[in-house]
Amino acid sequence: MSTQRALARRAAAELVGTAALVAVIVGSGIQASALSPDIGVRLLANSLASAIGLGLLIALFGPVSGAHLNPVVTLSEWWSNRRTTRPREAALYVAAQLAGAVTGALLAEAMFGRPPGAWSTQIRSAHHLLLGEIVATAGLVLLIRGLQRIDRAALIPVAVASYIAAAIWFTSSGSFANPAATVGRSLSDSFTGIAPGSLPGFIGAQLVGALLGIALAALLYGPNHPVPPVNREAPISV
Amino acid sequence: MSTQRALARRAAAELVGTAALVAVIVGSGIQASALSPDIGVRLLANSLASAIGLGLLIALFGPVSGAHLNPVVTLSEWWSNRRTTRPREAALYVAAQLAGAVTGALLAEAMFGRPPGAWSTQIRSAHHLLLGEIVATAGLVLLIRGLQRIDRAALIPVAVASYIAAAIWFTSSGSFANPAATVGRSLSDSFTGIAPGSLPGFIGAQLVGALLGIALAALLYGPNHPVPPVNREAPISV
Amino acid sequence: MSTQRALARRAAAELVGTAALVAVIVGSGIQASALSPDIGVRLLANSLASAIGLGLLIALFGPVSGAHLNPVVTLSEWWSNRRTTRPREAALYVAAQLAGAVTGALLAEAMFGRPPGAWSTQIRSAHHLLLGEIVATAGLVLLIRGLQRIDRAALIPVAVASYIAAAIWFTSSGSFANPAATVGRSLSDSFTGIAPGSLPGFIGAQLVGALLGIALAALLYGPNHPVPPVNREAPISV
Amino acid sequence: MSTQRALARRAAAELVGTAALVAVIVGSGIQASALSPDIGVRLLANSLASAIGLGLLIALFGPVSGAHLNPVVTLSEWWSNRRTTRPREAALYVAAQLAGAVTGALLAEAMFGRPPGAWSTQIRSAHHLLLGEIVATAGLVLLIRGLQRIDRAALIPVAVASYIAAAIWFTSSGSFANPAATVGRSLSDSFTGIAPGSLPGFIGAQLVGALLGIALAALLYGPNHPVPPVNREAPISV
Repeated sequence: MSTQRALARRAAAELVGTAALVAVIVGSGIQASALSPDIGVRLLANSLASAIGLGLLIALFGPVSGAHLNPVVTLSEWWSNRRTTRPREAALYVAAQLAGAVTGALLAEAMFGRPPGAWSTQIRSAHHLLLGEIVATAGLVLLIRGLQRIDRAALIPVAVASYIAAAIWFTSSGSFANPAATVGRSLSDSFTGIAPGSLPGFIGAQLVGALLGIALAALLYGPNHPVPPVNREAPISV
Repeated sequence: MSTQRALARRAAAELVGTAALVAVIVGSGIQASALSPDIGVRLLANSLASAIGLGLLIALFGPVSGAHLNPVVTLSEWWSNRRTTRPREAALYVAAQLAGAVTGALLAEAMFGRPPGAWSTQIRSAHHLLLGEIVATAGLVLLIRGLQRIDRAALIPVAVASYIAAAIWFTSSGSFANPAATVGRSLSDSFTGIAPGSLPGFIGAQLVGALLGIALAALLYGPNHPVPPVNREAPISV
Repeated sequence: MSTQRALARRAAAELVGTAALVAVIVGSGIQASALSPDIGVRLLANSLASAIGLGLLIALFGPVSGAHLNPVVTLSEWWSNRRTTRPREAALYVAAQLAGAVTGALLAEAMFGRPPGAWSTQIRSAHHLLLGEIVATAGLVLLIRGLQRIDRAALIPVAVASYIAAAIWFTSSGSFANPAATVGRSLSDSFTGIAPGSLPGFIGAQLVGALLGIALAALLYGPNHPVPPVNREAPISV
Repeated sequence: MSTQRALARRAAAELVGTAALVAVIVGSGIQASALSPDIGVRLLANSLASAIGLGLLIALFGPVSGAHLNPVVTLSEWWSNRRTTRPREAALYVAAQLAGAVTGALLAEAMFGRPPGAWSTQIRSAHHLLLGEIVATAGLVLLIRGLQRIDRAALIPVAVASYIAAAIWFTSSGSFANPAATVGRSLSDSFTGIAPGSLPGFIGAQLVGALLGIALAALLYGPNHPVPPVNREAPISV
């Protein structure tokens, strides 16, 4: 398979994977809100479904594209491998993730018989929420880099899934920790939505959190040096 | 053991396994509805119990029959191996699954002291529910085929169980994703039931979803070629 | 270490393990009932805590005593190995399990500041509950024997824990599936208790279920022959 | 890297890890209390998030510092290796854990927009709570030592996480089982807090429980002898 076609397939995996991820997050939020009056029960169901979905997608698409499904992960990986990876690849990944996130939100809306295309009205702009989002993203990046540094990258699917299940609860922001999913979630006026006006703050906090996570990993595991890509265990032969 | 007797044992595993699966789904639904007024809590319990039951059955019966427990899986496997597997085997599997599903529904009703044999009155026919069922089944088939293609078939029991736990929440249809279990569930007028009149739509959507899942797997993992049967890791010596 | 001392240590592990198991079941039931008015939420917490406790105890004490913690498992193991195991050993195990179960119930009562020694008043005698208990125990025995037959005994701690979490929900009886724990639970007048008058029916149903599980395993995995003890993976050197 | 710098890095891991642990416990408790009126639902969310957080931290920091994150674990490890480990190292670990626990509580308060620095007002001093805390800590120590003795130290992250999830439910005290986290939790007047006046009783009970756990491990696994440190699987090369 030509490099060109291989890159197209990797971008397709990022697009389909991010679409599925956002459909799981938004869809389970809509379902849970329809079924339970208790917001705690809603978040239990939503956090468990989202975590499982993320873990399965990383396991399934990891060998195809690395299963970043998140611009913060792509940028952090690109930074670690910046001598060997072209920025064009990272840009393609981010574009595929954004397109996937929008697709996933619209699919979730359609599955639940709601007219797609409404913006979320849920404002999330308080300062302490931004602190929560910084903590959530820093933890995610530290977890991925740490597992790579201790040669436990095979644990990443389960570990990242578990992390998200917990972070949704222990951070004040709901632990979006993913700029593409954040954009997608602005397109559903439901439990997991975020108003478009709150996007810049959240995405900014996620980028700050990513830097903090990289710094913490360097502090705890020693100076940074190139690491192999996330979970891209085995190439697909075709 | 003769091939004939081996096939009989495999069919018995499909029958017992599908009976157990439907008994778990229907029984936990009845129990949860009796205990909690909160429909979200009911679905949490029902989805966790159903997912665990499915995962254990795949692990336990995989080495005997492949533990399809689902006509969509049997047909998809047969299609992949159509040059070496006779259609008669697939037909026997589907018949055993249907007989098991009916048995399991009646067993669940009896365990809870309810007169067996009542049809479900729960109509599930809205168009967006059918879209949900297409998505649910496509995801299931993509997951199984994807794990086979990346040589991670050993993860199938845990991955399929986790998938169902999430899909029950993120799809609008409750993620039946199994024509045999759908038929069985029409025989219980309870939380997890489906009115007989809704069967054709659901089963049709499941078949469409299976085709979509096969297509997505081909797109992301390359052109289709014969794969080993699901999870039939080791033959049972007798 | 002499055989005599080794046997004493194995009995101690069965006693401590069964005490811990019953303390987890009864204690989490008392806690859950005090915290939630929703019986579904209570059973979610109680089933998850009980399942985790059982799984950890099997993992921890398996290499010491086989971690039966259940007379039905001991009798089924003894039957499989009756040519090499003396009945006296099985009797000692059952006695240790019963003593442990009573100790565990009293410990749970004491931990929650309740006067120990009250009998449960919860009558569980309806016929369909006994059917539920037969199904619960048959499934447990089939699971253990099946995993042994397919050389997956290492999965027993996780599989049995998961099974119990699901069986508490899908059977009508609450899936006691353990005569010793059933006796222990008669000594706590709380969420997980059982009135002494209901003991004979439940224990009888458990024994019938065990036979059914053995028969199902023979049907699906072939005629019975001696199997290695449950999960006694590695001897402890002392 | 010099021994001095290595020790500093290990202390940093204990500090960051304990801070993260307490932030997860306290933060998820605040979140759950804000979302659900049902205390059972609150504790379900809080126990699951806390357990996951602990398991991930042990997996991530185990190869750096052993990931004790708990003075009881540090003291128990030091006791087992007292011929080769200097007490100064144990003291440094405990100091880092205490500093981390306070940091984590303040971070959780800040993430939720609460003025940091308020003492908890939740009195936990009844005798039966202290019995619960003894049982909780004894079980934790027995679990860690038992897994080391049967050469299953690789299971410690998952096993300890699962244990805490269950112990929060089956003990009456909420299973703090960690003197540093107990001190941290006195600095948040929220769901998981403990009034400063209740600290001496809880910490005393934890120390008694640790001794009981060591005694039980000796009884069940044979006389104590030096064991390798918890989960310090591989040194970090820098």
